Amino acid sequence: MHFQFKGSHADQSPNPWKTLSVRNAYENPWIRVEHRDVLNPAGGPGIYGVVHFKNTAIGIVPLDEEGYTWIVGQYRYTLERYSWEIPEGGGLVGSDLLEAARRELLEETGITARIWTPLLEMHTSNSVTNEYGIAYVAQDLELGKAQPEETEQLQVRRLPFSEVVDMVMRGEITDALSMIAILKANEWLRQGLL
Amino acid sequence: MHFQFKGSHADQSPNPWKTLSVRNAYENPWIRVEHRDVLNPAGGPGIYGVVHFKNTAIGIVPLDEEGYTWIVGQYRYTLERYSWEIPEGGGLVGSDLLEAARRELLEETGITARIWTPLLEMHTSNSVTNEYGIAYVAQDLELGKAQPEETEQLQVRRLPFSEVVDMVMRGEITDALSMIAILKANEWLRQGLL
Repeated sequence: MHFQFKGSHADQSPNPWKTLSVRNAYENPWIRVEHRDVLNPAGGPGIYGVVHFKNTAIGIVPLDEEGYTWIVGQYRYTLERYSWEIPEGGGLVGSDLLEAARRELLEETGITARIWTPLLEMHTSNSVTNEYGIAYVAQDLELGKAQPEETEQLQVRRLPFSEVVDMVMRGEITDALSMIAILKANEWLRQGLL
Repeated sequence: MHFQFKGSHADQSPNPWKTLSVRNAYENPWIRVEHRDVLNPAGGPGIYGVVHFKNTAIGIVPLDEEGYTWIVGQYRYTLERYSWEIPEGGGLVGSDLLEAARRELLEETGITARIWTPLLEMHTSNSVTNEYGIAYVAQDLELGKAQPEETEQLQVRRLPFSEVVDMVMRGEITDALSMIAILKANEWLRQGLL
């Protein structure tokens, strides 16, 4: 039930960058931005602005016995546009991410699930941020009443999972974590693994 | 040859957030961090730290006639770990992204391609950033000599595309843009679209 990071250990090499200084440039409850003076891998001087995320991104692909899933629509302030996504939330780095996933799925869709399968790990944007994201497939579902947070204004839709795959393929879902989770879960379904 | 964003127009609704004030908290050549006072969709007061990206993330999936592709390994300073990815770079928002893609592929792998097909659009991390990414499939390839930038220390590998799909499925490639591009290109190959 736990993630074990497997990325590229065989090829791991020592850090070719050198950090000369670190200064906190901005901080809020979700991110901390550090301005750093560095020497790049060639030894030349440079700067790096690193955006540290305080939360792990968590996505959930709920799948019921009829082959349906649920997606959530909300206006994304950063993009100034509406976005349809899998149920998602954040869990404090170091906290119980499965518990956070259960809470997010319940809040956004009203669903509780008995079977949780770790689906993927990813780094959203590794040239600037250290954000880390995971996703689960949730199965054996019980439906209840959604409990969205005050700051959220969500729409929820139940759709055949194959239709949500088509939305990714047609470019109608553009959230990275959603795209990866849907495409990878689809591959698992094709291979008979779910 | 151009991207036309199709995300969720049918469901687009007016911005339910209100921005009360904006202050620049940090800026470097790649990002600008704005601290904003806002009213959330429920009308309650809050803050938002928005990380604006000055570049569009660009990924390329080169495919040769033998069904091979190329991946690039580098140490990612933000993650403090090594990462294998598709050839990637950035293009200034508003600039010619296809030209930037051609340049990145040439620099990192030495490849020039005659056929470029837009593969996907995505938003990497829309709760905090406005980063937008795209990817192309590059075909009809001519091989030459890589020309990496001074700040880069890259390894390049040529592998069967199916093996790179397996690396994504096994969790050995964790870069979001790479994961999406590889899984979506794989779906296109399966459907006979490439």
